[in-house]
Amino acid sequence: MSELKNDRFLRALLKQPVDVTPVWMMRQAGRYLPEYRETRAKAGDFMSLCKNADYACEVTLQPLERYELDAAILFSDILTIPDAMGLGLYFETGEGPKFKKTIRSEADVAAIPDLDVAVDLDYVMNAVSTIRSALGGRVPLIGFSGSPWTLATYMVEGGSSKDFRTIKKMMYQQPEVLHALLDKLADAVIAYLNEQIRSGAQAVQIFDTWGGVLSTPNYEAFSLQYMRKIVAGLIKENDGREVPSIIFTKNGGLWLETIADAGSNCVGLDWTIEINNARKRIGDKVALQGNMDPSVLYGDADTIRGEVGRILEGFGNGSGHVFNLGHGIALDVDPANPKVFIDAVHELSAKH
Amino acid sequence: MSELKNDRFLRALLKQPVDVTPVWMMRQAGRYLPEYRETRAKAGDFMSLCKNADYACEVTLQPLERYELDAAILFSDILTIPDAMGLGLYFETGEGPKFKKTIRSEADVAAIPDLDVAVDLDYVMNAVSTIRSALGGRVPLIGFSGSPWTLATYMVEGGSSKDFRTIKKMMYQQPEVLHALLDKLADAVIAYLNEQIRSGAQAVQIFDTWGGVLSTPNYEAFSLQYMRKIVAGLIKENDGREVPSIIFTKNGGLWLETIADAGSNCVGLDWTIEINNARKRIGDKVALQGNMDPSVLYGDADTIRGEVGRILEGFGNGSGHVFNLGHGIALDVDPANPKVFIDAVHELSAKH
Repeated sequence: MSELKNDRFLRALLKQPVDVTPVWMMRQAGRYLPEYRETRAKAGDFMSLCKNADYACEVTLQPLERYELDAAILFSDILTIPDAMGLGLYFETGEGPKFKKTIRSEADVAAIPDLDVAVDLDYVMNAVSTIRSALGGRVPLIGFSGSPWTLATYMVEGGSSKDFRTIKKMMYQQPEVLHALLDKLADAVIAYLNEQIRSGAQAVQIFDTWGGVLSTPNYEAFSLQYMRKIVAGLIKENDGREVPSIIFTKNGGLWLETIADAGSNCVGLDWTIEINNARKRIGDKVALQGNMDPSVLYGDADTIRGEVGRILEGFGNGSGHVFNLGHGIALDVDPANPKVFIDAVHELSAKH
Repeated sequence: MSELKNDRFLRALLKQPVDVTPVWMMRQAGRYLPEYRETRAKAGDFMSLCKNADYACEVTLQPLERYELDAAILFSDILTIPDAMGLGLYFETGEGPKFKKTIRSEADVAAIPDLDVAVDLDYVMNAVSTIRSALGGRVPLIGFSGSPWTLATYMVEGGSSKDFRTIKKMMYQQPEVLHALLDKLADAVIAYLNEQIRSGAQAVQIFDTWGGVLSTPNYEAFSLQYMRKIVAGLIKENDGREVPSIIFTKNGGLWLETIADAGSNCVGLDWTIEINNARKRIGDKVALQGNMDPSVLYGDADTIRGEVGRILEGFGNGSGHVFNLGHGIALDVDPANPKVFIDAVHELSAKH
């Protein structure tokens, strides 16, 4: 493997000193880029793009050609695990992901096959190793997975949901069935992330997109508990380096203290919380990632630079900050604006 | 007007002593009740139900026949104001509310007519006075409105939204247009709530359903600021009584301190925050309303009673608690379960 030329991102995750604050953007390989839309058109549908290592590599690298990003993230979908479990993932235009089969009973959970992630999700591992090799040490590669709770919402509801009625009914009527499902998913996520690490991922992020719809005790019991298990089960080193992990719970601002205690190196923040408040609450226990409102990228250069400066000032001095958006970049952002954003992070953080 | 026989709800809002904790449920008149579905079928579509004072009164009283509720809430829609402003509210099955016209520019905002709420929204005022009279002093009647920010999301997006891209674009590209819209809406909401009070509402609640999608500074600038203006503009007394107000921002748990400072008597809590945490943070400055996860009503009697007990204990001793769900009751709850819930609140709080 090539020597890493830019390790700011990994250093910040480990709270080591950096020259400037590293930055990447959730969903940085995506529809706001015309070159992404071209590759996607060549590939056909979305999952064909994910399943072809060359195309997945192509779109992963595209934003790095335009912007001085400090990390690349595997291009894939969060629902690869349930799909490999036989649920039949498909996408309906404008409707988000759907599953042909759903999980509603003890028998449904029992019938979920044990995955051999190296085989059943070989396309993901091929994408990871292809991207890692193509990066040539330019920046580190992030692997990722959905959290067990987030994956379970799609598996039980059969797709996206507004109110999560079906899984919440399961939570109160058959909690043991839900726990069996979550436990199975946690084991699968551990194997999945470890295989991504073996294939070349240099850090991993767990996306808990829907943890924020839970009450405080249910967040602990049905989401955080399983992420804690995952973090504890991760391989600690690859190529002699520590492999840092990030937990990102959207709308998790009320629970920062317990998330910071879950064993990961870094807590991802969405845009609803002030980063100075977050740092006051959890101190220097873990690194923080975030947290500009993605819609600031609709603004002009002054607005973007102003908000970057405000967040850098909010974090304050010391290491342990990875700059990011508080959620994925929107599909209708002008591709000129992320450049303003990313350059502002580097330029303005040099002063801190 | 008849003398009020049960004033627990109003007393709790004013932090006066009560015998047991008062309780009502957001969306208590709704689809989970078969008798509601019958009335709605008679009325035709949803807005016909809202616009007929007798039907609106009928469904408002239905849950009070089944449960020992301590308040009634006007049956209406949050989007009556934009509809009266000429945007053409309609409902598509399974898709939520939509508007024929949207607000996207300075000219669109300028073209919004000034409302004469007593005339343009006479059907709401008729419903309020009809319900107040039919209640005969049994319990107090709550009037309500959407918050300016929440109303604006529908008006700008043209309906419900997942990511609020259009209004967030306006927020960063034409903030002065958005402020002009919000200011116009705040004035309309003040007039609307005051006319509801004159027509018989004994307390009012502002529903800020979508405030939680904002960053902390934007919540202050684009939502809370306007709710503060509304609360300051409310009539202070009717029939010689103080008319208490409640602000409910869904996903507003991070901002409780500033919400509690906005001038209302009570802060509504959703189910994601622990009520003991909320009380620790804002003390006895205002009353608290909430906050059981509505999905607990999918559980059995022991589960429901257990959660009621946990929340009562969380609030602790002293006055100033109105029990409620953290959001509207779900349409597929067994109508037997709210009785367990409401009786448990009265029974278990008698001990506190």
